[in-house]
Amino acid sequence: MPDARAGGGDHRLVVVGAGFAGLELVKRLKGQRNLAIHLVDRHNHHIFQPLLYQAATAILPPSQVAWPIRQLVRANAKVTTMLGEVSAVNAAARRVDLADGALAYDTLVLATGVTHAYFGHDDWAPFAPGLKSLDDATRIRRRILLAFERAESSPAQAETLLTFVIVGAGPTGVELAGTIAELARTHLPEEFRNVDTRRARIVLVEAGERILPAFDPSLSAYARAALASLGVEVRTGEAVTRCDEAGVVTTAGTLAAATVIWAAGVEASPAAPWLGLEADRAGRAPVMSDLTAPGHPDIFVIGDTAAVPWREGVMVPGLAPAAKQQGAYVARVIRARLAGRAAPGPFRYRHQGSLATIGRNRAIIDFGAIKLTGALAWWLWGVAHIYFLISARSRLAVTGNWFWAYVKNEPAARLITGPIGR
Amino acid sequence: MPDARAGGGDHRLVVVGAGFAGLELVKRLKGQRNLAIHLVDRHNHHIFQPLLYQAATAILPPSQVAWPIRQLVRANAKVTTMLGEVSAVNAAARRVDLADGALAYDTLVLATGVTHAYFGHDDWAPFAPGLKSLDDATRIRRRILLAFERAESSPAQAETLLTFVIVGAGPTGVELAGTIAELARTHLPEEFRNVDTRRARIVLVEAGERILPAFDPSLSAYARAALASLGVEVRTGEAVTRCDEAGVVTTAGTLAAATVIWAAGVEASPAAPWLGLEADRAGRAPVMSDLTAPGHPDIFVIGDTAAVPWREGVMVPGLAPAAKQQGAYVARVIRARLAGRAAPGPFRYRHQGSLATIGRNRAIIDFGAIKLTGALAWWLWGVAHIYFLISARSRLAVTGNWFWAYVKNEPAARLITGPIGR
Repeated sequence: MPDARAGGGDHRLVVVGAGFAGLELVKRLKGQRNLAIHLVDRHNHHIFQPLLYQAATAILPPSQVAWPIRQLVRANAKVTTMLGEVSAVNAAARRVDLADGALAYDTLVLATGVTHAYFGHDDWAPFAPGLKSLDDATRIRRRILLAFERAESSPAQAETLLTFVIVGAGPTGVELAGTIAELARTHLPEEFRNVDTRRARIVLVEAGERILPAFDPSLSAYARAALASLGVEVRTGEAVTRCDEAGVVTTAGTLAAATVIWAAGVEASPAAPWLGLEADRAGRAPVMSDLTAPGHPDIFVIGDTAAVPWREGVMVPGLAPAAKQQGAYVARVIRARLAGRAAPGPFRYRHQGSLATIGRNRAIIDFGAIKLTGALAWWLWGVAHIYFLISARSRLAVTGNWFWAYVKNEPAARLITGPIGR
Repeated sequence: MPDARAGGGDHRLVVVGAGFAGLELVKRLKGQRNLAIHLVDRHNHHIFQPLLYQAATAILPPSQVAWPIRQLVRANAKVTTMLGEVSAVNAAARRVDLADGALAYDTLVLATGVTHAYFGHDDWAPFAPGLKSLDDATRIRRRILLAFERAESSPAQAETLLTFVIVGAGPTGVELAGTIAELARTHLPEEFRNVDTRRARIVLVEAGERILPAFDPSLSAYARAALASLGVEVRTGEAVTRCDEAGVVTTAGTLAAATVIWAAGVEASPAAPWLGLEADRAGRAPVMSDLTAPGHPDIFVIGDTAAVPWREGVMVPGLAPAAKQQGAYVARVIRARLAGRAAPGPFRYRHQGSLATIGRNRAIIDFGAIKLTGALAWWLWGVAHIYFLISARSRLAVTGNWFWAYVKNEPAARLITGPIGR
């Protein structure tokens, strides 16, 4: 791998991770002189995380929730995109080590995100896949669709085959449960002859005392009722103690299920250990008020992998707008530094609200003072998501697919790819 | 697996394979009384084969060249769709054995198609993947895109990394070569900083004396010149004698290449051995003039897996219209038999012409008396393909993507999924 190809004396910025934080940073630095950027990611695509659950449930094809990174930044000739995975950061030598080479930097930004976490039970992973990457999404889609196929071939085993357990009732868990329930009750029944897919059992298991704990309790209660009306069995205060081929065991008993999806928690990428810093309980790296790493004024840590204080005792949540705000802020800091201007004041998070959907036509939005539920919230959610989709093309395509799915009541991407065995 | 769920005394028809032949047959039998159909396929989707190369080259996403079979036939309540792979046919017991069960039949139709063949060199498969399934397409797409990514990281090895060898110059090989050349010359250059993707070398190797041998020699010559103008190196009369990690060895020498794609030949699925029949050289089963298998009046063999005589010494070609005609014909035979009417006369193939594209704006069409080349042929090709796409939705989506790719000069589905290693 070549050294950062800084055109004669350009400041070398290396950005690791092309999620919302890293990409926003790079976009905001467009036009900055004397700066050469390397944008490194271990995938060739940026994922629009808020819609990834729709790829996992066959509503949208993968190509409508992810786009090639180098296509997104190609208009900026100062950005070199690299497919690569960081193995170490050598802060003394100002160098990032990748699997097949190294990149020298003057300024480094780590925006490496989070992965799903099994809290010490990594052996559950094969039985209860999580949802972070596009491959995770197609894997989950394959399992869900194959469960219905197998039930059609072996109706005697339909009860276990058509039991879907989702572990964790944050927005992803709720959205998965609602969408699978609709798939089973609305889209599929007329296509199956030997089983009644409406009999599918969708169980949402949450260890905490209510679902969607980041929302106001009134919204949690609304969401719970909405899920129940879709036929989702919501179980709170129930922890999973075991996942295996047969299904899950919880503190309340055994659930035989062919499909288990893990949406129970995330763990930060190892930015903290790369820098020799002590991570918090969620694995996040501590940061200073300007989002640099303590003791490393030339290294920024942003996005979900950073523990950024918000208000008393609470950290900035792992939401796309929060990541984008941090990327934009660091762009301002870097521009100021390169211009020799005073740095902007400390980073301040502006919370814009939280959203979650529960199937077709129902959503909850928590703006703090204003709380919305029902169809109006759902339409707002749809408009907001289409608005924030990055490329004009995807906006059109996603709108088209959603409109079609809404009018024709038919999901767009029900393909089983990859091995048929689990 | 349940027995064919024939509602009291219905004639049990089992159709194996939901390609063009099997699907056309099932569609043509809609409304037929006293008939219960089982449609079995080892994938959950029908593939629109003529566009599969566009999925392999990132022009179209997989969801626009394949659709769930049970969605395509759901309007016919007499059709039960089954995901399953045939392991044997027990003609004496009138039973098809599947991996996880068996289906009893009164009439059986084998429409199981072909797979790519390495002519005794199956060990080449890992180095030179062929293109028949959706997983083949995403595998080839991953390899092509990764080759460019790796060249950007390791420009010193760009020469080998950016050499693409396509073995076999039938329509698929020609279409792959033309599209990869355009990707390298038109779409990608502005996104890469360390390598000039226009330097990519695309080599089309053909053992025969001309490319596209099924077309008129004048059209072969036109296609060859068109490929050359795209920068494709066409080599005829040159056979591949070895494929390995380093590339290929041909009768003319060694070609170091990171990406080799196999488009050199197909072999029929084992319908002939299932029935104890002697296959022809291409592995195809012999059939009678009514497309039944010799000695098995209740078993039809149709589509690419059948050796159907056309004109003196020539078999019906493996084209979508040929397969559809056979499916439609067998539907007429079955309707006649169920009605106790005289069977229709022998199957007659009506050749509608052959088409192939060479990149953007150029194609060849061989209607026999009329031969077309250039932009007009390309537009006709596009209109014909959009017209024959099965669902109205895909027609719109594909048209949209093509229009976009044409106007913006930007492929739609450049995602690398699956493992990053080859």
